[in-house]
Amino acid sequence: MTEIHQTDICVIGAGPAGLFAVFQLGLVDLRCHVIEALDRPGGQLTALYPDKPIYDMPGFRVIDGQPLADRLMDQISPFETRFHWGRQAISIARAEPQEGLPLGGWQVGMKDGGAVLSKVAVMATGGGILGYGRTQAAPPGTDTFFQTDSGLIPTDTGAFQTATSGIFAIGDGCVYPGKLKLILSAFHEAALMAQAAFAICHPQKRLKSQYTTSSSELQRRLGVRGAD
Amino acid sequence: MTEIHQTDICVIGAGPAGLFAVFQLGLVDLRCHVIEALDRPGGQLTALYPDKPIYDMPGFRVIDGQPLADRLMDQISPFETRFHWGRQAISIARAEPQEGLPLGGWQVGMKDGGAVLSKVAVMATGGGILGYGRTQAAPPGTDTFFQTDSGLIPTDTGAFQTATSGIFAIGDGCVYPGKLKLILSAFHEAALMAQAAFAICHPQKRLKSQYTTSSSELQRRLGVRGAD
Repeated sequence: MTEIHQTDICVIGAGPAGLFAVFQLGLVDLRCHVIEALDRPGGQLTALYPDKPIYDMPGFRVIDGQPLADRLMDQISPFETRFHWGRQAISIARAEPQEGLPLGGWQVGMKDGGAVLSKVAVMATGGGILGYGRTQAAPPGTDTFFQTDSGLIPTDTGAFQTATSGIFAIGDGCVYPGKLKLILSAFHEAALMAQAAFAICHPQKRLKSQYTTSSSELQRRLGVRGAD
Repeated sequence: MTEIHQTDICVIGAGPAGLFAVFQLGLVDLRCHVIEALDRPGGQLTALYPDKPIYDMPGFRVIDGQPLADRLMDQISPFETRFHWGRQAISIARAEPQEGLPLGGWQVGMKDGGAVLSKVAVMATGGGILGYGRTQAAPPGTDTFFQTDSGLIPTDTGAFQTATSGIFAIGDGCVYPGKLKLILSAFHEAALMAQAAFAICHPQKRLKSQYTTSSSELQRRLGVRGAD
């Protein structure tokens, strides 16, 4: 039996980039499936330095990897997200237009079977760490989609889209002029990506510029009590 | 009497962009003077929503403006920073090479007298809010330095440098393809800016790629106990 899931966005990787992508996508009301090779969230945060202090997370004098991962998971808890833990994304192929996917999109295959069909795919794979090696950064058979350069995926800086429209790359696995492998850059990349992902999912709609501090619509999505 | 200060970097604006710029510049061992029109840190955070909740700060399910400003101030406390509170930056002009400023740089003039001489200037002025209006975003007499577009300052996306080498713009006052007026984007802009500012201040040195979680040099700069 092969399980085929269908969603708006397939995020590959549940490190800080992937988790915050889910948050930004949730703010624009897009649903995500997340495929993660490890059996838990956090990526490098929890795999490499769960109890090592990080000093450059904005607003935190110091925070360890594990509590940061926990806080990012807490932050996305208002959104309906399906996580595929301990599953490795091994292929990505164009999906034909079909019911629920009228414009076509992507089919991301998982090791040991199963796939996620989505309108947009987001590579948040951490640049070769965590089971996504040089070859897997561009999964087998997909080299034509990514012009990889030492395992990294080149993107633009306006939406962090790869050379292939509809596939984005954020976090340590992407590269562009000035790129720094900082968690805080992944947050920025996720935010800009989400705007472009919305435009792909809803080509006929115009995304309103809204802020969480003032928009009751965003606050309702975040489950804030009293938002209406 | 006119006080003339001299430093590595002159940051204009002490909102979240300016404060985190000080942090990133401190990590690469550059000293800052910060000119702020208000009498306190935080910019929009404390002027517009000190007690309004922000829901999209990475790692915080919710945080109000004032505590976020306090946390950013705490984060830069290890660095020697001179703040000019309640002073408005009103002009910016090229400074000739001189002692302590061998390559030349910038002279930022303050209302009511006084100026800061620096190797690099960073506009973190919040895009017209807080006393930096449409005209002040490019201070009087400096229109040739900035190609302003509706009061915003265009930058590149690799270092957030303006059309004038040595002058950077970050936060809500800068604009580039995909720009979102999000605090988290200002953090990213500040980080990339700091790399380029270092290169200007130390053209003969190569900046090592280091992370706060593993570099004892960075931890020493941050005053971490036991770092050596």
